[in-house]
Amino acid sequence: IDQVRPRVDPTPEEREKLRQVASEIIERTRAATSSRVPEADVMQVGSTARGTWVRGDRDIDIFIRFPPDMPRDELERLGIEIGHEVLPSGHEEYAEHPYVKGTYMEYDVDLVPCYRVKEASDIQSAVDRTPFHTTYIRERLNDDLAADVRLAKQFFKGIRVYGSDLATRGFSGYLVELLTCEYGGFVNMIEQIADWNPPVTLDPADHGQASFDDPLTVIDPTDPERNVAAVVVPEQVASAQHHSRVLLKQPATDHFFHDGGSSVSKEDVIEHLNKRDTHPIAIQFDAPDLVPDQLWPQLDRSLKGLQEGLSRAGFEPLRGEAFSEETAVLLVECEVSQRPRIERHEGPPVHVKGHANSFYENYADDSDVYGPFIEGNRYVVERPRTFQTPVEYVEESLLDVALGVDVRRELERGYEIFVNDEIAELTSSFDKELGRYFNPKP
Amino acid sequence: IDQVRPRVDPTPEEREKLRQVASEIIERTRAATSSRVPEADVMQVGSTARGTWVRGDRDIDIFIRFPPDMPRDELERLGIEIGHEVLPSGHEEYAEHPYVKGTYMEYDVDLVPCYRVKEASDIQSAVDRTPFHTTYIRERLNDDLAADVRLAKQFFKGIRVYGSDLATRGFSGYLVELLTCEYGGFVNMIEQIADWNPPVTLDPADHGQASFDDPLTVIDPTDPERNVAAVVVPEQVASAQHHSRVLLKQPATDHFFHDGGSSVSKEDVIEHLNKRDTHPIAIQFDAPDLVPDQLWPQLDRSLKGLQEGLSRAGFEPLRGEAFSEETAVLLVECEVSQRPRIERHEGPPVHVKGHANSFYENYADDSDVYGPFIEGNRYVVERPRTFQTPVEYVEESLLDVALGVDVRRELERGYEIFVNDEIAELTSSFDKELGRYFNPKP
Repeated sequence: IDQVRPRVDPTPEEREKLRQVASEIIERTRAATSSRVPEADVMQVGSTARGTWVRGDRDIDIFIRFPPDMPRDELERLGIEIGHEVLPSGHEEYAEHPYVKGTYMEYDVDLVPCYRVKEASDIQSAVDRTPFHTTYIRERLNDDLAADVRLAKQFFKGIRVYGSDLATRGFSGYLVELLTCEYGGFVNMIEQIADWNPPVTLDPADHGQASFDDPLTVIDPTDPERNVAAVVVPEQVASAQHHSRVLLKQPATDHFFHDGGSSVSKEDVIEHLNKRDTHPIAIQFDAPDLVPDQLWPQLDRSLKGLQEGLSRAGFEPLRGEAFSEETAVLLVECEVSQRPRIERHEGPPVHVKGHANSFYENYADDSDVYGPFIEGNRYVVERPRTFQTPVEYVEESLLDVALGVDVRRELERGYEIFVNDEIAELTSSFDKELGRYFNPKP
Repeated sequence: IDQVRPRVDPTPEEREKLRQVASEIIERTRAATSSRVPEADVMQVGSTARGTWVRGDRDIDIFIRFPPDMPRDELERLGIEIGHEVLPSGHEEYAEHPYVKGTYMEYDVDLVPCYRVKEASDIQSAVDRTPFHTTYIRERLNDDLAADVRLAKQFFKGIRVYGSDLATRGFSGYLVELLTCEYGGFVNMIEQIADWNPPVTLDPADHGQASFDDPLTVIDPTDPERNVAAVVVPEQVASAQHHSRVLLKQPATDHFFHDGGSSVSKEDVIEHLNKRDTHPIAIQFDAPDLVPDQLWPQLDRSLKGLQEGLSRAGFEPLRGEAFSEETAVLLVECEVSQRPRIERHEGPPVHVKGHANSFYENYADDSDVYGPFIEGNRYVVERPRTFQTPVEYVEESLLDVALGVDVRRELERGYEIFVNDEIAELTSSFDKELGRYFNPKP
């Protein structure tokens, strides 16, 4: 920990510089706002407002809080107008509503309009909640706890569970702050996480009423109805538990600084496939032009759809993964490469006369069919199977499986299939991803 | 039916001959018995006593009924002694107790000692019940019904469901007699069977109390506690239903006279395997020296054990069969011929700390293992699989599966494995059996 702190604590110069830049932006924003809506105010939020940013982070988040009775379209119009005035080189992005993002003195600045509501329970959109979070955390953090939050954030980054985005589905910055506060520091938090027995529920403000079906529940101190950890999946809870134990057992700075994993070469992939003797099939297509939080749920759903399809067809997926850069890839590794030409098909019990007779007559004279014969009390046939190999299945049925809507659109435009050793070709775009796939770790 | 009757009804000459021969044997048996045990009597039983034998049958069954207070060893001794006196060329066989079997005037004669009890409920061994069955059926059968019993027996033979032996597990002669009586004739019986909705219960004497967990229950008119159809398996009930419907829909003498099915050549087998693209494995060994009723349950159990083993190992049996002549064969057709070198192995949930740590440490440094990694809330590894092919499995694990005791003993002495096209070699002993296997019918 003593070795990590200097690497995550901002230097005095960095703090001073950030304070100055933030003040300037706030002043400029106040000026641009008060001339238009005198009742509005301006507030710095996020980790740089809370003193919990990790050394080198250069994000300044400024919220412009308008009166709650302002119509939404006016709030949006004014937010954009002020944003462009303060950040002339900025561009618009979209969360709950549009905001302006730009750089100022080499800092990344978000200028976000929201409503200034009295209580967190009165919020009109999710961003209205952010100022309450900042106020809550600021009131509870002293310098020591803020330093431990930085350690905690770096640790969660290092073990790849940091971030509430939908590719990670892990721990948000606010969640890490709450956990560090609630457990009174980094080391105790790690010790507690190591011993968690999910489902785990924390309620820092002791005001929760709703119950949540999540492995980890942290009731938002500013909103009793909200689980701050709602996005965290069981994998990420388990991963945090695993790495907390490892850190306690064998403390090392490595745990805090993930090297991204080693990439693999074509030859490595082929060596792994020889060692595994599995039957991978991959589908490569143009990645839909979506932000990650829209793209990843679609890729996840599409991968699951493909795996379920291959499973129904009898090829027994062992493991699979989706990759995305300019192209996207759905990779499924099958245990079974080939099925017989025939498949067993059970008919009705013989005593269910109507159905049984139809079944029997349907198959009795078909020379491609073995049977009908009787097993137990039922007719059974062995009839020609539709797909003997994963490739046959994918070629005929890929568009019949459950797919994300934009993934489907791209697949309709075209895709390429890679089978067995051919997937080594994918290292040209996905050598890191394949590296992680063939060296799976917690 | 008019065409079948002349083929199953005994000729007047045959009847007269049988009557004469039976009388002679009964007289000889009475003479030999009364000199030893004056209270004993002699009774002809079985189908030739009931007038329900099918033309050409040459079985005469004679029971010697001793007083019920005679010690069992004396009954056995006297039964054998009298048997040898009446049938000097006879030999001993064993059912509930020993009896003598021999030929007399070209008839096959059984001379069986039993106890002469007052009521069927007083029986001391199963054979004591037979005389009651004969009396019951004789009292109910007129010539027309007896003729219909002959039709029914021939039909059940023709569709391969006749016999309560443990290779057939079908309809005994007594059961066919009861069904024909109960339904008032052959045609009505067939119509009723076609419409059966199992479980079916018949109670000709209307005295049943026990309930049976069988698809077909016919309460023995001479014993309210006994299901005459207890041995009949669901397959044979369904088969009787199927063929009854076919007979009613397309009456033809073929249904009564089974041709035994066509046998297959080596080339036929290979053609079938190419058409099916399955992966058969067969184990051939010396058939244990057992009577069929002891052998078949052991072969059935051994086949099931082998199928379950192959299934657990991931080779997905499609169908299987046991054959027996001088050698016995267990044949299992697999859907999957090869598994990867690795297999997925799920560990404990990560939060179950003790087990989770042991699991992790057990695998973490094993270079043959992929992982541990986390899926859901659990550790998972991909570890080397023990058996990649059905042959590897059989070579290592055949003696670990559930086997009949005498089958195991023979397998310990040695066996030969046949894989894929090699099973065509088995046509040298089992061309008929393989013919039925590759032309499965109800």
